Amino acid sequence: MKQTQFSSDFTLGILGGGQLGKMMLYTTRKWDIATYVMDKDDTAPAFQGCDVFFEGDIMQYEAVMEFGEQVDVLTIEIENVNVQALQDLEDKGIAVSPSAKVLNLIRNKARQKSFYQKQQIATAAFEVYPKPNLGHERSYPFIWKSAEGGYDGKGVKVIRQASDLTDLPQAECIYEDMIDFDLELAVIVARNYDGEMKTYPVVEMEFHPEANQVEYVICPARINMDISDRARELALKVSESFEHVGLLAVEMFLTKTGELLVNEVAPRPHNSGHYSIEGAITDQFEQHVRCVCNLPLGATESTVASVMVNLVGEEGHNGKVIYDGIEDILALPGVTPHIYGKKETRPFRKMGHVTVVASDVVEARELAEKVKGRIRVVAEV
Amino acid sequence: MKQTQFSSDFTLGILGGGQLGKMMLYTTRKWDIATYVMDKDDTAPAFQGCDVFFEGDIMQYEAVMEFGEQVDVLTIEIENVNVQALQDLEDKGIAVSPSAKVLNLIRNKARQKSFYQKQQIATAAFEVYPKPNLGHERSYPFIWKSAEGGYDGKGVKVIRQASDLTDLPQAECIYEDMIDFDLELAVIVARNYDGEMKTYPVVEMEFHPEANQVEYVICPARINMDISDRARELALKVSESFEHVGLLAVEMFLTKTGELLVNEVAPRPHNSGHYSIEGAITDQFEQHVRCVCNLPLGATESTVASVMVNLVGEEGHNGKVIYDGIEDILALPGVTPHIYGKKETRPFRKMGHVTVVASDVVEARELAEKVKGRIRVVAEV
Repeated sequence: MKQTQFSSDFTLGILGGGQLGKMMLYTTRKWDIATYVMDKDDTAPAFQGCDVFFEGDIMQYEAVMEFGEQVDVLTIEIENVNVQALQDLEDKGIAVSPSAKVLNLIRNKARQKSFYQKQQIATAAFEVYPKPNLGHERSYPFIWKSAEGGYDGKGVKVIRQASDLTDLPQAECIYEDMIDFDLELAVIVARNYDGEMKTYPVVEMEFHPEANQVEYVICPARINMDISDRARELALKVSESFEHVGLLAVEMFLTKTGELLVNEVAPRPHNSGHYSIEGAITDQFEQHVRCVCNLPLGATESTVASVMVNLVGEEGHNGKVIYDGIEDILALPGVTPHIYGKKETRPFRKMGHVTVVASDVVEARELAEKVKGRIRVVAEV
Repeated sequence: MKQTQFSSDFTLGILGGGQLGKMMLYTTRKWDIATYVMDKDDTAPAFQGCDVFFEGDIMQYEAVMEFGEQVDVLTIEIENVNVQALQDLEDKGIAVSPSAKVLNLIRNKARQKSFYQKQQIATAAFEVYPKPNLGHERSYPFIWKSAEGGYDGKGVKVIRQASDLTDLPQAECIYEDMIDFDLELAVIVARNYDGEMKTYPVVEMEFHPEANQVEYVICPARINMDISDRARELALKVSESFEHVGLLAVEMFLTKTGELLVNEVAPRPHNSGHYSIEGAITDQFEQHVRCVCNLPLGATESTVASVMVNLVGEEGHNGKVIYDGIEDILALPGVTPHIYGKKETRPFRKMGHVTVVASDVVEARELAEKVKGRIRVVAEV
């Protein structure tokens, strides 16, 4: 890769213009790195702050090729992109990360899980089926997962009885052991082209009981040092196995017996790392830019305890968004809201997040609950 | 003021598109606050990241009026603006801060100093002259300062003998005692429309011996608690006296006898607060936006020790800029460069800054020196 990231001859390209792309642009602005963004929606959060915005469908081969040929380094902010185009751009000498190979492995859960098995990376036991198999020999309950297209709790279902399998999509899927876990943890690993690697502290994800979306991310996780060390080791092993360049968010279960099982990964900045903007020396978006531009990695330590609260659209509210109570939470010390800039709210749509920092995690968690109670994402009436 | 800063019906306007404006936009992007910027140069650092960029001269009455009438809240990132237009916009009901009154007081050093005298705010003894007075009765050395137009060491001269007065501009000026100081300190005060006030920790400014520009800003200053408390009190008094809304950076001398004397102020985010992006809970740019939008103020505490290093153009270098050694400093822990995005370097031009954070100020100061030794802002050959 050309070592000219800080010259006006260098261009970074990002496929996807959502909030993750938007937050990557904070770093490219800070470093004056010319950055192009492509998204089919020109009201996307990352429309502003990039040097050039391309209106185009990142699932379309021609659109991605045309975009990619204009940049030196190409990355993504969402996995649903045309992977064949990425492969062909790599072959033309564009530095693409995550690579087409990694994206191909990750975006199909059957392939992803089989990869872990081959690499002897601990994961919940599973079988792969071309479509839901009614004649299986598993005991209930277990988890059905669609191999492709799942997101934020979609494409995942707990199967408690045979009849739960009847109205599922007739597509490739996996059946997976339902893990009796203590906690859901995540570790973000950064890796650049030179193979330099760093892990962020282990975080703990608390899910919303109904929406199956992460409600709070707590940093550091309330676990002992032994578990923390094992989780970071495991995450490093996963990133190395993929030979991945960029951030890799590794989500894992901590079982009741103290075992760590990899659940799934995301090859990019991730919701579980949003706290790092306020909480860590180097935020995850800057770190991702460092990785894909093959710059030295930044320090991943936290100087404070943080809790991240997702702001999702209230149930029953559709339309022009209002952040009810935002002035109230701004009066709380150590509270920083992030508003993604989506003009319309829908139930459970990710509209923003709030980071809470405090000197310890108990205090931060309490403050986060206060934040959650005061701010509501609703529609104008 | 309308309490609708987080709705799509609200617009913030910034006069000036330099690096301070650019860094304010980090907050308006984070909060999705629609923001217009005006500058006569469409390659200005804040060109990107604003909602609408207006090419226009902020010193021109008509340009400022036309711009100001389109926004709900108007602020500045540089004092050299058309103040009459600000006054007329205030009269039309636009929320303008800093106010025309404060800008009028501040941008003329004779008026600024006389104001301190009237308000019994300690400042170095001085006299005002309509032009350099050759028949003065002062003993040498003393300081000549042009009343208007000075910036970064321009418009200031040490007068050691009568002949030093002969080639000065024939314009209003002050003669001021040359203070035998121990340290130059600064305190940033935030104040919103409701009168809520907060001070940032006292910082220490180390100047480059030749360029008379700040080379390092050290947070916290290496002073005792008594001096720190007095400096913060003094800064609060200055902000209150001005009835200022927004940030006010108060620069002061700590004399050899332990006295604090106000030197000058800037009614906006300031170089001495850049460290706060990485070092403080609420960075100064976010705090300024909170003030001028009359939102509750954020916490001003630091969680780390910080040193800010200014990146200025190397002597003898004019032309297309290169940041020589930037990859080296990125490998140092806790080091964050900020590149303003000016395409051309000139000797001593402010091209960026670097923040260094560490667990204590001694370590941060050492690391800052290492940074200074490795990075150079030069021109392409």
